[in-house]
Amino acid sequence: MAGTFISFEGPDGAGKTSVLRAIVARLQPVLGERLLLTREPGGTGNKIAEAIRDLVLDPANTEMDKKTEALLYAASRRQHLVQTILPALAADKVVITDRYVDSSIAYQGGGREIGTDAVTAINDFAIEGMMPTATVYLDIRPEVGLNRIQTTRQDEVNRLDVEALSFHQRVSEAYHALAAKDPERFLIIDAEQNLDAVIADTWAALAPVLDLKD
Amino acid sequence: MAGTFISFEGPDGAGKTSVLRAIVARLQPVLGERLLLTREPGGTGNKIAEAIRDLVLDPANTEMDKKTEALLYAASRRQHLVQTILPALAADKVVITDRYVDSSIAYQGGGREIGTDAVTAINDFAIEGMMPTATVYLDIRPEVGLNRIQTTRQDEVNRLDVEALSFHQRVSEAYHALAAKDPERFLIIDAEQNLDAVIADTWAALAPVLDLKD
Repeated sequence: MAGTFISFEGPDGAGKTSVLRAIVARLQPVLGERLLLTREPGGTGNKIAEAIRDLVLDPANTEMDKKTEALLYAASRRQHLVQTILPALAADKVVITDRYVDSSIAYQGGGREIGTDAVTAINDFAIEGMMPTATVYLDIRPEVGLNRIQTTRQDEVNRLDVEALSFHQRVSEAYHALAAKDPERFLIIDAEQNLDAVIADTWAALAPVLDLKD
Repeated sequence: MAGTFISFEGPDGAGKTSVLRAIVARLQPVLGERLLLTREPGGTGNKIAEAIRDLVLDPANTEMDKKTEALLYAASRRQHLVQTILPALAADKVVITDRYVDSSIAYQGGGREIGTDAVTAINDFAIEGMMPTATVYLDIRPEVGLNRIQTTRQDEVNRLDVEALSFHQRVSEAYHALAAKDPERFLIIDAEQNLDAVIADTWAALAPVLDLKD
């Protein structure tokens, strides 16, 4: 498999969207057509995965069971991988995805308390071992992240954001357990710094993975 | 758990819809409000499960990966179980579902060759051991079932129906393997007889399960 596969992960409020936007703006001139930015759930240009995304994120679906939700995330991921990520990697692209399997393990396995082993198992079915080369993890204490969401993003709160702090603590713990198990893959960035410093650290961490000049 | 949980299974062309309709027509006067007829994928009155059904059966989704499909079936089943089947059983109802987990194992595991163990595993996540008390299996040789579909149902052919005979043979083999593993649960009905005989045999098989007078 050619190409390079990178995921961005982190709890809500870590600034993932802003950091990703800045990194992509710097990468675009270097990589051009070789760069594919995509996201989960769903996936850039992936009609089926996006339809599953719409279903799982629809705030009207208040009666959705948490295991239904976990299976839908896995289904969306499978389609994203097969139809979007793998063809791009085969074409030697750099694929950056905003969230991947670690999000499900942290949010559904940890946050929603389904259990990280059970959520890992259904995702193993979906991804068949296809893991990113590197995962940028924007590290922030759950209470700091939650505070950021509640003060700045009240207009776009989704179902997960309204959960309590304990939920965010479980998400954070599950992420740290994943990072501890796979320290080579996880590039841990201190996301409590100001945004420019977070972006600079992220760029520095990614540079060797992508063979970039600083 | 009170109530009685019954599934109807069989390959395409076995006459499942017609048999089910006749059985329900005979049960309705006996059971009244105690009878719940539902179906998979989806589920009677289950908005989320039906939305997943629409996605998985949409013939426009030609690019859907077979593992995406299997995960969507499991997601839909989970929601159907939790939101529709379990509450009805708790209310002491007789729940009859047109297809349940055996369909996924036979169609996705066998027919689509994902493997029956892998499909069983993701469904174990979804159903947590909640199996029907009895499963009516309408047994028909795959070539006979396929011939019936092709001569009588050309107006409502779906994605599965257009697969080749080998697909239907694998489905049939997987069903028989399930029946062999669980002979107490499977009520095997010869579905190559004329419809009246199939209905009579099904009624006779169900009568002791439902404590019905003949």
